[in-house]
Amino acid sequence: MDMAQTKPHERLAEMLAEDMGAVNALIRERMASEHAPRIPEVTAHLVEAGGKRLRPMLTLAAARLCGYGGPYHVHLAATVEFIHTATLLHDDVVDESRQRRGRPTANLLWDNKSSVLVGDYLFARSFQLMTDTGNMRVLRILSNAAAVIAEGEVLQMTAARDLGTDEAVYLKVVRGKTAALFSAATEVGGVIAGAPEEQVAALFTYGDALGIAFQIVDDLLDYGGDATATGKNVGDDFRERKLTLPVIKAVAQADAEERAFWTRVIEKGDQRDGDLAHALELLDRHGAMAATRADALGWAERAKGAIRALPEGELRGLMIDLADYVVARIS
Amino acid sequence: MDMAQTKPHERLAEMLAEDMGAVNALIRERMASEHAPRIPEVTAHLVEAGGKRLRPMLTLAAARLCGYGGPYHVHLAATVEFIHTATLLHDDVVDESRQRRGRPTANLLWDNKSSVLVGDYLFARSFQLMTDTGNMRVLRILSNAAAVIAEGEVLQMTAARDLGTDEAVYLKVVRGKTAALFSAATEVGGVIAGAPEEQVAALFTYGDALGIAFQIVDDLLDYGGDATATGKNVGDDFRERKLTLPVIKAVAQADAEERAFWTRVIEKGDQRDGDLAHALELLDRHGAMAATRADALGWAERAKGAIRALPEGELRGLMIDLADYVVARIS
Repeated sequence: MDMAQTKPHERLAEMLAEDMGAVNALIRERMASEHAPRIPEVTAHLVEAGGKRLRPMLTLAAARLCGYGGPYHVHLAATVEFIHTATLLHDDVVDESRQRRGRPTANLLWDNKSSVLVGDYLFARSFQLMTDTGNMRVLRILSNAAAVIAEGEVLQMTAARDLGTDEAVYLKVVRGKTAALFSAATEVGGVIAGAPEEQVAALFTYGDALGIAFQIVDDLLDYGGDATATGKNVGDDFRERKLTLPVIKAVAQADAEERAFWTRVIEKGDQRDGDLAHALELLDRHGAMAATRADALGWAERAKGAIRALPEGELRGLMIDLADYVVARIS
Repeated sequence: MDMAQTKPHERLAEMLAEDMGAVNALIRERMASEHAPRIPEVTAHLVEAGGKRLRPMLTLAAARLCGYGGPYHVHLAATVEFIHTATLLHDDVVDESRQRRGRPTANLLWDNKSSVLVGDYLFARSFQLMTDTGNMRVLRILSNAAAVIAEGEVLQMTAARDLGTDEAVYLKVVRGKTAALFSAATEVGGVIAGAPEEQVAALFTYGDALGIAFQIVDDLLDYGGDATATGKNVGDDFRERKLTLPVIKAVAQADAEERAFWTRVIEKGDQRDGDLAHALELLDRHGAMAATRADALGWAERAKGAIRALPEGELRGLMIDLADYVVARIS
């Protein structure tokens, strides 16, 4: 394998292959249900759909980077993937989604009931998994993350179409929907390894900044990416009337006429032919795309700066490369 | 207040009034969300709807009965109520319910999204509350109960209309939907008090048997109660094609013709005028109502037998009275 040509998350997966094998075995074991076969059916549909497993990998990498030699980073990585899978199941119900990772969603294949209840089962199983570690601090971190995730989702639901939403609210939503699980994933890796507090704090900051960069890039590509790279079509967020960072920046600088436009298309949802093109023009006029791009790059730099507090080596190098890779699509 | 005339749960509430005040204050504090006002709105709608708070009261009673003098039974009681409230929110989405406790459900007043996400928030908050106790064993018990609850709900969804469902599967569903939280509620009261293992086991058995009796009575009244006592109409379960214990017992003794009837009305859902009357006649013919009633009384006796392992006194007396009260409606 030519390492220079391989993506950093693939090199991480290569380097952590043995640990990831243990995580996958534990996930298969714990998603089983003797009495309710619907549970492993629905879970397998998602878990085996071939996501990148970025979150559990971050937990493993953080623990290894801090020199951990025990068994429980595997439990924590599986916990993180269960929480992620549970939120995906509930998200697809909330958003009435029909596709995820190019396959029909569970709510479409089975029904909303199955998605709600199997998601609840995975949440409960994730908490059981954590208790296996016997470490109260990781329980606090992960239950706190679960609360931030749910709060962020509720906030997004009520704030998404409200032009009053500013960058502070956007950041809170993004921390909830993405960064809270990234930062918990890296933080618990350090905690289980018994790393010094400044390293634990650095791992938290790395995960938080990486997650925020990740989400901003996603929002940016929705107005300027190509569909093959993102699996989404340009303007999906616009059509779904989601108030993402580029729009928030453009609205902040809008004159009365522009504000009326945003009110009509986002708040009222009255969209006509040519509206997407006009929105793109407004984003461009106010430099909103460039400013959003600069924000994403700033968060990636912040992630890289934080991880430098951890011991030097191949693993740290890969985590730095990962932060670059997240923003590479917009660089 | 004439104690002899007062219901045992009301006397319990009276006796535990100070503790319950602390539980209510903690619930109000923890259901708050600085950024997402939808969360306390939805939660308050349910929490303040005037349920009997039976589950948190059982935790308080169990802890006090074991001589507990610390603060954490309050956290555990609030945890139990949060888990209960979260499951109600999700149940109403799954069942597409329109009423609960005589008021419109949250999914009707707001929407399914709010019910799913606020339920998730309450689950997460309940786990945070538990970690406050610093007691790993109660975390294991309550996360295990949460998994059994979700598994029971999934099982009910797939087994409810399947005539192959036997009493063992029914019991598993009932433990999931009702008894698991009752038994966890009483067990953690003993654990947090540091009670001897035989008392902890007796508290578990009491909660388990009480919960099962409670649910069987509910199922029985659906075919024979009066609407004022139950808040339900006779035959609601029949119309919703739920395979409850009386029907399972009648199906087990059905001849070919009767089996065809049950297949048509429960599995196929093809119900006509006179079907409910015929079902009641079949339940009567096979002694299914009397046998179900005997089962409920047996579980109540089992609860009373178990709690006698705990120290004698007014509190224990009330818990015995409570078991009698649960089955009093069918005695």
